[in-house]
Amino acid sequence: MMEAETTTKDIDKVMNNAWKAFHEYRKLPLKKRADFMRAMAVALEEGGDTLLEIAVSETNLPLARLRNERTRTAFQLTSYADACERGNWLEATIDTKHDENNKPLPGLRKMQVPLGPVVVFGASNFPFAYSTAGGDTACALAAGCPVIVKAHPAHAKTSDWVADIILQTARILNLPDGIFTHVHGGNETGKQLVQHPYTKAVGFTGSFAGGMALYNFANQRKDPIPVFAEMGSVNPVFILPGKIREDAETLAKNMAVSITLGSGQFCTNPGLMIAIKSEELDRFMSLLGEQIRLTEPATMLHPGIYNSYVEKREIALSQAKVETVAVAEHDALGNQGTPTIASVDAAAFIQNNLLHKEVFGPYSLMIQCDNLEQMQAVALSIEGQLTASVMATENDLHENVLLIESIKNICGRLVLNGVPTGVEVCQAMHHGGPFPATTDSRFTSVGADGIKRFSRPICFQNWSNDFLPEELKNENPLHIYRTVNNVLTKDPLI
Amino acid sequence: MMEAETTTKDIDKVMNNAWKAFHEYRKLPLKKRADFMRAMAVALEEGGDTLLEIAVSETNLPLARLRNERTRTAFQLTSYADACERGNWLEATIDTKHDENNKPLPGLRKMQVPLGPVVVFGASNFPFAYSTAGGDTACALAAGCPVIVKAHPAHAKTSDWVADIILQTARILNLPDGIFTHVHGGNETGKQLVQHPYTKAVGFTGSFAGGMALYNFANQRKDPIPVFAEMGSVNPVFILPGKIREDAETLAKNMAVSITLGSGQFCTNPGLMIAIKSEELDRFMSLLGEQIRLTEPATMLHPGIYNSYVEKREIALSQAKVETVAVAEHDALGNQGTPTIASVDAAAFIQNNLLHKEVFGPYSLMIQCDNLEQMQAVALSIEGQLTASVMATENDLHENVLLIESIKNICGRLVLNGVPTGVEVCQAMHHGGPFPATTDSRFTSVGADGIKRFSRPICFQNWSNDFLPEELKNENPLHIYRTVNNVLTKDPLI
Repeated sequence: MMEAETTTKDIDKVMNNAWKAFHEYRKLPLKKRADFMRAMAVALEEGGDTLLEIAVSETNLPLARLRNERTRTAFQLTSYADACERGNWLEATIDTKHDENNKPLPGLRKMQVPLGPVVVFGASNFPFAYSTAGGDTACALAAGCPVIVKAHPAHAKTSDWVADIILQTARILNLPDGIFTHVHGGNETGKQLVQHPYTKAVGFTGSFAGGMALYNFANQRKDPIPVFAEMGSVNPVFILPGKIREDAETLAKNMAVSITLGSGQFCTNPGLMIAIKSEELDRFMSLLGEQIRLTEPATMLHPGIYNSYVEKREIALSQAKVETVAVAEHDALGNQGTPTIASVDAAAFIQNNLLHKEVFGPYSLMIQCDNLEQMQAVALSIEGQLTASVMATENDLHENVLLIESIKNICGRLVLNGVPTGVEVCQAMHHGGPFPATTDSRFTSVGADGIKRFSRPICFQNWSNDFLPEELKNENPLHIYRTVNNVLTKDPLI
Repeated sequence: MMEAETTTKDIDKVMNNAWKAFHEYRKLPLKKRADFMRAMAVALEEGGDTLLEIAVSETNLPLARLRNERTRTAFQLTSYADACERGNWLEATIDTKHDENNKPLPGLRKMQVPLGPVVVFGASNFPFAYSTAGGDTACALAAGCPVIVKAHPAHAKTSDWVADIILQTARILNLPDGIFTHVHGGNETGKQLVQHPYTKAVGFTGSFAGGMALYNFANQRKDPIPVFAEMGSVNPVFILPGKIREDAETLAKNMAVSITLGSGQFCTNPGLMIAIKSEELDRFMSLLGEQIRLTEPATMLHPGIYNSYVEKREIALSQAKVETVAVAEHDALGNQGTPTIASVDAAAFIQNNLLHKEVFGPYSLMIQCDNLEQMQAVALSIEGQLTASVMATENDLHENVLLIESIKNICGRLVLNGVPTGVEVCQAMHHGGPFPATTDSRFTSVGADGIKRFSRPICFQNWSNDFLPEELKNENPLHIYRTVNNVLTKDPLI
């Protein structure tokens, strides 16, 4: 682990070690990778309250929330470890014929292999789950890639502590030195890490500006590398007429919780709501406003995020036709973000690109439409999102097929009658979405399919059984699913 | 279809049509997409010799070769159509619990959906298989994306003809107008197509310069889009000591054929050979030289490619320490490329980056190494490749594990005791590789897995069965493989 700003020479040493480790680590059986990840999960939980208290002191997040987050992080590690061993992500594919004695011929056999060292930039809002031992690290390790984490400066001590846990686990399991490295530093360190010749991919969770900077660094390389940057979004919630008539109270309660959860510091925070002007909408807004006014402000992650919230909120509220609907009544202290709801009419929203941008914090803007056509126009004007939600009765859904299709087209996850906050870790989860939600809509950063970000196919042509990797041998010794002559099967080739 | 240079206004019209078509086409059942592709395949073959003769006149390729290529193109269309319907590429994934009556709850359900209109730039060397109705078009259509093909100027008439076949097939099947568009134009047209807001992905097969230009155009967009550019490579062939001792005659014969096949105009042409200095190598070179001297030069695709070959060959041959080993004895006429073999010692090769670059044509360079360590150094110095081949006995393989690992790391397809030319169309094929072979090593441009380039996941959270797409409904009406609670199955959810 390195303290203070990492120098160019240090980075070269780090990346050389990672490169060396790569050649050993990628040859380890899947089970060894999985065992490493499981041991990390156990060691992380063993960090006990001491570790949690460090995180509390750095992030201002409540202990209970951080405890849950650490459990989630451990769960990610073990469930991706299971997926790593299960091996579906390897997409083992065999096309082969048989010889005159009906023995399988070598033919063509394909599987995923790791890309190489992956540089991970953690998120300020998830000191455990999307940081040092978080989702990107877990996916890269499962794929067979060494990981270099640049500590988030806002929780550098937590990151140090977690890094120690990982390094110690690696040592106990006799894993190659360089399989995991933790570095500190600023933008220049980040740039050098992304542009080092031995870096083969980048994982990032954070702001649009941060993600795009890394993306551009990667594209300036002599050999561009893939960057998966999850850059947040405004997660529009479309509230259809039937639903608002039927269920305004519950809706208002649920939306208020989702908007203010964790002081709004989630990439899935619902920053936009869209509904049609009506008495029911007025009622909903008044119910939602009540909830917001009663919400106690909570301290934000760090002064930078707080100041940015204050500034962006103020700018948003000062835009033409934007009206402040409700503000939390409790005085905000220190770095507490004030829960706020505003409203604007659809025409003004469509014309003003600034209103489409994320105000990271406990803030949401209701877009009031004249009719369904205008709601559709709003949907078409919104850029790529991690999530979109539809609050609708069955009848609403039947009557708004085109609108739903348009909404589907801008998001990675489409929620029906639920809030966007709360990202379950499971294989069917997709946490990604069209640009600018991420830099590559084809991949997810939550769920075991995130492993695929850091692997690529290799095809073995005409290799005799003895020299093939276990994954592709006739006997299928790992007992994994493989596509053999277009059929998915666990059967050996005989 | 548009003649001559396409204007900005035309492009806007084309892309608007494609965008409109996208919203209809992506909703069609997989079977309709597959039927369209199968009908295209039939219509293509029905183009008869007239179509082949146009292609002969534009490309100078032999009629028999073009007939085979067209059959391959039809096979691509039908086999990707089959894969489209089989639906494994959808990666349908369901995580769900059951209620108290043991009925499946909505939960989270994920599948691939199309990205949007795809712009395809065909290859000069494959007027059918990697052009208008080629692999990229087939993959995009299977994924549910409308396609806009920019005709390759070197075979614009063939392209027109094939485009007419596609358009007529689409009309007969009543498919949305704008599902396929054929445009002509130069670099500016290409740039405008890549940068149009409605373009969501790009497929390209061709030169490094061409691919990188498109890649950079795409990254300059406000919303960068994925570009899959297959930019060729030098396909190194590592000949190990045991093999060259055992089998020099056959090796020489096979290498000569592979080097000169189609006048060397394949992206899998073996442009580099690597072996260890020895009497056996001298013998191999003399055998190979004999074969090359007897090879009849063939006319290249067009004057541009011929001139480039002449120029690059001359520059390569004039580099320090490069010796010309053999040149075809028949006089080259008109635009015929002269088959040529050269030789250089490993140290000179490693130092001279120019020698690492493709000389597109019937040319190959033997890198002579002092020993296995130097062969390993050569392997480490070579950049990303579509393929690498290893000519080896079992003993060679046992004794060179590290070398094989290094070679594996630079290529997309690893051939044992075979030449790299000849790319089978099947699911286990991987035609891709680390940069600069392609702009994204995680995808293939041959085989049905190429469909994944043009799709992205979407996750449906809490959607009741009635409103889910067929692919994700409890009943599994399409009878596709799905990962349900981490288990691959075709079973319905009950």
